[in-house]
Amino acid sequence: MMSIEMGVHNTIDRTVTIALQERSYPIEIGQGLLVDPCTYQDLPDATSVVVVTNTTVQTLYAAKVVAALQTRYRCVHTIVLPDGEQYKTWESMNHIFGQLLHNGCDRKTILFALGGGVIGDMTGFAAAAFMRGVRFVQLPTTLLAQVDSSVGGKTGINHPLGKNMIGAFHQPIKVICDMNVLQTLPKRELSAGLAEVIKYGPIADLGFLEWLHLNIDQLICLEPNALAHAIERSCHIKASVVGADEREDGIRAILNFGHTFGHAIEAGMGYGAWLHGEAVGAGMVMAACLSQTLGLIQAQKVASLTALIGRAGLPIRSPLLDSRNNGARYLELMRLDKKSLGGDIRFVVIHDDGSASLRQVPDAVVQTVIEQCCA
Amino acid sequence: MMSIEMGVHNTIDRTVTIALQERSYPIEIGQGLLVDPCTYQDLPDATSVVVVTNTTVQTLYAAKVVAALQTRYRCVHTIVLPDGEQYKTWESMNHIFGQLLHNGCDRKTILFALGGGVIGDMTGFAAAAFMRGVRFVQLPTTLLAQVDSSVGGKTGINHPLGKNMIGAFHQPIKVICDMNVLQTLPKRELSAGLAEVIKYGPIADLGFLEWLHLNIDQLICLEPNALAHAIERSCHIKASVVGADEREDGIRAILNFGHTFGHAIEAGMGYGAWLHGEAVGAGMVMAACLSQTLGLIQAQKVASLTALIGRAGLPIRSPLLDSRNNGARYLELMRLDKKSLGGDIRFVVIHDDGSASLRQVPDAVVQTVIEQCCA
Repeated sequence: MMSIEMGVHNTIDRTVTIALQERSYPIEIGQGLLVDPCTYQDLPDATSVVVVTNTTVQTLYAAKVVAALQTRYRCVHTIVLPDGEQYKTWESMNHIFGQLLHNGCDRKTILFALGGGVIGDMTGFAAAAFMRGVRFVQLPTTLLAQVDSSVGGKTGINHPLGKNMIGAFHQPIKVICDMNVLQTLPKRELSAGLAEVIKYGPIADLGFLEWLHLNIDQLICLEPNALAHAIERSCHIKASVVGADEREDGIRAILNFGHTFGHAIEAGMGYGAWLHGEAVGAGMVMAACLSQTLGLIQAQKVASLTALIGRAGLPIRSPLLDSRNNGARYLELMRLDKKSLGGDIRFVVIHDDGSASLRQVPDAVVQTVIEQCCA
Repeated sequence: MMSIEMGVHNTIDRTVTIALQERSYPIEIGQGLLVDPCTYQDLPDATSVVVVTNTTVQTLYAAKVVAALQTRYRCVHTIVLPDGEQYKTWESMNHIFGQLLHNGCDRKTILFALGGGVIGDMTGFAAAAFMRGVRFVQLPTTLLAQVDSSVGGKTGINHPLGKNMIGAFHQPIKVICDMNVLQTLPKRELSAGLAEVIKYGPIADLGFLEWLHLNIDQLICLEPNALAHAIERSCHIKASVVGADEREDGIRAILNFGHTFGHAIEAGMGYGAWLHGEAVGAGMVMAACLSQTLGLIQAQKVASLTALIGRAGLPIRSPLLDSRNNGARYLELMRLDKKSLGGDIRFVVIHDDGSASLRQVPDAVVQTVIEQCCA
C-alpha cells in the first residue's frame, strides 16, 4: 500500500445509512471527502473503475477525484458527457456503453457518478443495464443530488413523451456528499436543491420545516453546520421512506410532493428550460394550493410554505404551458406521469399534521388550482 | 364473467416452478395453451395489457392470443417488431417504449412476449425498464425460447461491440410453453432449439443425455410425449440452477456451455447469419474438445456428443472468422464476452461425471482447439 496524504481535513463528518438488507449502503456527509483518498479505501476490488461526469464538473473536479481513486485502483477511466437535462437520453447511455466496452470493462467494474442528478440517474441506469448490472458509487456535486436524486436507487433517462420513463431501481454501494463542492454551484442550482430539502418538511417533519424557516438564509450562504444538518435530515427522511418502500409500491410516492405538477412544467417548457428543482418549487405551491382547496391544510400554512419557497430563490408562480387551454395542457402532461394509473392522476397532498397522502382529484378542481397558480 | 370455451383440449399438461421467493413463477407446458382463455384467468388485474410480437409470429398467432386475452382484459394492444436477431437493438426498444407511452400504459400494464428468444429478451428488458419495471409473461413460440431463453429472467439487447451487453435480470410472472406452436417452426429453428436441450445433458444430467441419444429422432418429428419430456426436463434443470444462483454470481454460468465460442461465432459472422442455437451447437463441440484437451473428459464422449449434435441437424464444424488470424479473431471476440473478467476468458468445461465448471485456459491451448474445430 502507498502512504495516504489527507488532502483536506474533515471537520463535519456524518453518516446516514439506507437500510435495505443486502442492498444497504452508507451516505457519508463531510467536507473535502471527494479528493480524500481515504474515502475510497473500503470499496470492493475491481480491475478497472470508471468516472462518469459532464464537461462542467470535469473541469472542476475530475482530475482530483481520479487522482484519489488511483490510490485505490490501478486503472481509472473517465467518460465525459455534455452538461444538461436535455442530454439525459439514450444517446448518452449508448456513449457510456460504447466506452465501457471499448475500455474492456467487465462485471466487476465500478462506475462513479461524478455530477448532479442527470449524471447520477444516467450512470446509475448504465450500471443497472451494463452486462445486466454492475456496482456504482454516487459522488453528487449538486445540493439536489446530495439530498434527493443520489439517494434511493431510482435511475433512468427521459423519453420524448415523458421524464424518467425508462430506468431501473438500482442502489449505489455508497454515496459521498462533499459539501465543499457546493461552493462552485451556481446560485440557481443551489436554490433548485433547496426545493427538495424544503419538500421533506411538509410531507414528514414539521419541526424540520420550522428549522428551515429559521435557517434558510444560512443555507443560501452555505454555512457548513446548517448545510450539514439540512443534508443529513433530508437523507434521513428519504432513507426511512425508501427503507419502507424501495420500489414505490406505496408510501414512497409521497416523496413526489410537487413533482406531478413539476414534471408537467418541465415537459411543457421543454426539458432543461426550467431546472427540475425550480419546477418542483412552483409545483409544491400548486400541490399545497390543491391540498387547501380540498380542505386538507390551512391557508396560512400554504402561504407560509409559499413564502419559504420564494425565500429559497425559487419560482412560486407556474408558467403558462398553453395560452388557450393551459389547464387542459397541464392535465394532458400529468396523465403521462408514471404515478398515473389507467389515466387517473394521483396527486401527493399534504395535511395539517405534517403528513402526506395520495389522492385522485376531479379535473375541474385541478383546473381551478392551475388557474390560481399560473402566471 | 363471460363463459369460456375451451379451444383445444389439453392432453399433456405439466408445470415446472422456478423457485425464487417472491419472484417465483410457473412454467406451464401443454398443447393449445396459447389460444385457451383459461391460460390467462389467474393473471393479475390491469387496465391494459400489451402483446409484443414480430411480423412472422403475428401472422400465425397474434389474433388468437389477443382474442383469448380479451376474455380477461378490456384493453389489449399489440406491438409488432421486425423479425430477426439484427433487430434486437435499442431502436426496437425505443419503438416499444414509444408505443407503450402513446397507448397510455402505466405501472400496472402487463407485457406479453409472443415470439422467440429475441422477442422474449427485448420484451423482458422493456418490462424491466418501462417506468422502472412492470410485469411480463413469456409466450415462447420457439423450442429455444421454451427450454432456455424465456426461463430465468435474463433479458437484454445487443450492442455493436457484443451480444446481450445491455439488459437486466427481470423475472416473468408466468411462462406458457405451448407445444402446438412448434408445428409451424422451421426445421432449422427446431434444430437450434435442440442445441439448448442437448446442453443440459453433459453439464448436469447424463441420464437425460442418454435419453436424448435414444429419442432425438422423435424430437425432430415433434412427437408430443418426447417433446413434453424434453421441455420439462430442460426447464427443470434450468430452474434448479437459476434457483441456486439467480444473478449468475457462480454456478449459473455453466448454462453457458458452448456459448463463449458460440457468441464469438455469432458476433464474428454478423448477428443473424448463424442462429444462436446453431452457434451454440458448434460451440459445444469446441468446448467439449477443449475439455478433452485439458484431460477432463474422454475422447469417446466428445465424439458421442458431437454425433448427437449432428443428428439434431446442427453444425459441428465452426466457421473461419478470419482467413489469416482465425484463432486470434476468436480470442478477441471472446474477451468481449460478459463472462470474461479483466480480459481473462472463463470457459465452461465438462467432466466425465456429467458436471461442468469454469476454467481459464492459456491462449495457445484455445488456439489449438479452434484450429481443430474450424472448417
